Amino acid sequence: MNTEKIYLYDDRKDVTLTAYILQDSPELFKGPRPAVLICPGGGYFSCSDREAEPIALKFLGMGYQAFVLRYSTYLSGGMVFPDLSKPLPPKPETAYPKPMIEIGMAMKIITDRAEEWKVEPSKIALCGFSAGAHNAAMYSVYWNAPVITGAVEAGDGLRPSATILGYTLSDYMLMKDAAMAPFDKAFFGASNTAYLGTSEPSDDLLKEVSPALQVSENTPPMFLWATSKDNLVPVQQSLVMAKGLADHKIPFELHVFEDGQHGLSLATQATSTAKTQVDKDAAQWIDLCEHWLAKRFSFELDERTEWEAQVI
Amino acid sequence: MNTEKIYLYDDRKDVTLTAYILQDSPELFKGPRPAVLICPGGGYFSCSDREAEPIALKFLGMGYQAFVLRYSTYLSGGMVFPDLSKPLPPKPETAYPKPMIEIGMAMKIITDRAEEWKVEPSKIALCGFSAGAHNAAMYSVYWNAPVITGAVEAGDGLRPSATILGYTLSDYMLMKDAAMAPFDKAFFGASNTAYLGTSEPSDDLLKEVSPALQVSENTPPMFLWATSKDNLVPVQQSLVMAKGLADHKIPFELHVFEDGQHGLSLATQATSTAKTQVDKDAAQWIDLCEHWLAKRFSFELDERTEWEAQVI
Repeated sequence: MNTEKIYLYDDRKDVTLTAYILQDSPELFKGPRPAVLICPGGGYFSCSDREAEPIALKFLGMGYQAFVLRYSTYLSGGMVFPDLSKPLPPKPETAYPKPMIEIGMAMKIITDRAEEWKVEPSKIALCGFSAGAHNAAMYSVYWNAPVITGAVEAGDGLRPSATILGYTLSDYMLMKDAAMAPFDKAFFGASNTAYLGTSEPSDDLLKEVSPALQVSENTPPMFLWATSKDNLVPVQQSLVMAKGLADHKIPFELHVFEDGQHGLSLATQATSTAKTQVDKDAAQWIDLCEHWLAKRFSFELDERTEWEAQVI
Repeated sequence: MNTEKIYLYDDRKDVTLTAYILQDSPELFKGPRPAVLICPGGGYFSCSDREAEPIALKFLGMGYQAFVLRYSTYLSGGMVFPDLSKPLPPKPETAYPKPMIEIGMAMKIITDRAEEWKVEPSKIALCGFSAGAHNAAMYSVYWNAPVITGAVEAGDGLRPSATILGYTLSDYMLMKDAAMAPFDKAFFGASNTAYLGTSEPSDDLLKEVSPALQVSENTPPMFLWATSKDNLVPVQQSLVMAKGLADHKIPFELHVFEDGQHGLSLATQATSTAKTQVDKDAAQWIDLCEHWLAKRFSFELDERTEWEAQVI
């Protein structure tokens, strides 16, 4: 395995693409291999380590190359959470559409270095969680729009071949109307300011950043999973995303597990400090996802090994 | 993730321990973590890449630190297979007991650097495949014998806390009597010379290197898996190993899948160049192994996250 950290901007340390490239061997599939680009969540305040390397390891274990993108967030890589009792000063340099454009920049880097990294550029999936899922969904609906193609030199844009969304946010209009506990409401108000660069977004802007409302025939197939008891991002956010896909006849798979709080990541000890982050039912999502990905990403294997061809 | 390759001898490039150490983060289990030391197979001729990094990735994905040991083999890291039509010249410098002593050397390195690597030294499992499983089984029965403790400075020896054996060889006396196809017989003759340093081993030596016959109350619990149709190492080799464990009341788990050839590794595309190396039933072994390991290796998680403790 080779790992490499790439800075997306010369003058910033917080936006990085980490490449995890499998050992190359004549005994293994010669490639090029499909790849998965992972966007951790963190409410657009930060990028969580729980949804970064542990997820990469799972896709590497399936035989795919993996990449983790730490996109622009309000805390710029810091982890000290803002005081939610005061209004958050907007910070346009990390706000929309930066996080989504950075997915395009990462897609471009991977595509440009595909030969070196033994990546099949037509088989790059996006995978995100929570705000990272929202970011992945945003890129999935806007990858060929001027907001991306004007910022990333990649012709007609770089389309992900599949998108994986864990407990995604997808419809800000629905979120605005959702009944929430006071803490959650404060968190979302702050997260909106962090992401949108304003504490009073217009309905037009809220619709623009709602991927569930922006699905088109160019949107890639998706795998979605969530829990019905999500205590922060209501499960409706996954359901309306799925409805948007269904309305446009985009192939998708959706798994809603009954139990489990927001932000489960793998829902195993590998991504947990506490028992509340483990759920053996929800933990099935990664195997379901492996099966779904295999529909598009299965290796074309030889009938027999070279050894068998010689000996038998 | 940090990876590091350590050479076990100053004057040899072929015997290496590769460490795969998970990213440390306040958002993840603070450790120390259990670890798995992996011995690839290869008939004591070589160490197969198919049973090295891809296996490490699976244990890393469970939240454990992982290590790959490339022990002494006849080809000393080369891959050009010897001509089996001629007698193989013995090569004592790579022969028994070197491969088993090197497991002890690796256990010592991991234990000595446990704090730096965030490894729990009382929770190190061995995992081997084919000849690598034989090597792991040998160490598991001889870890506190003079052959190891005289060579590795570790007091009373370093006991693995569990051992995982894939399609193991375990009883050379049984192997000697097994009916085999001419090619397999030639392969085993050569492999014996490679491992034992002689083409005419005595029955005493064959018994000495048969871990199924050497189980004692000091042998660690084991997880074994194999396929009933193994075309190279008969499934009986796993069965007699299990019998040896049962006779000594050592806890073990055994899974024999009906189909699948020798050397399946993960039995998925991640360890295959050809369809003959994939078997969806046998591929279940790694999940079964994860469940079994969890009996001993489960993290002691907090009741709630720090965040929950603050907010709720």
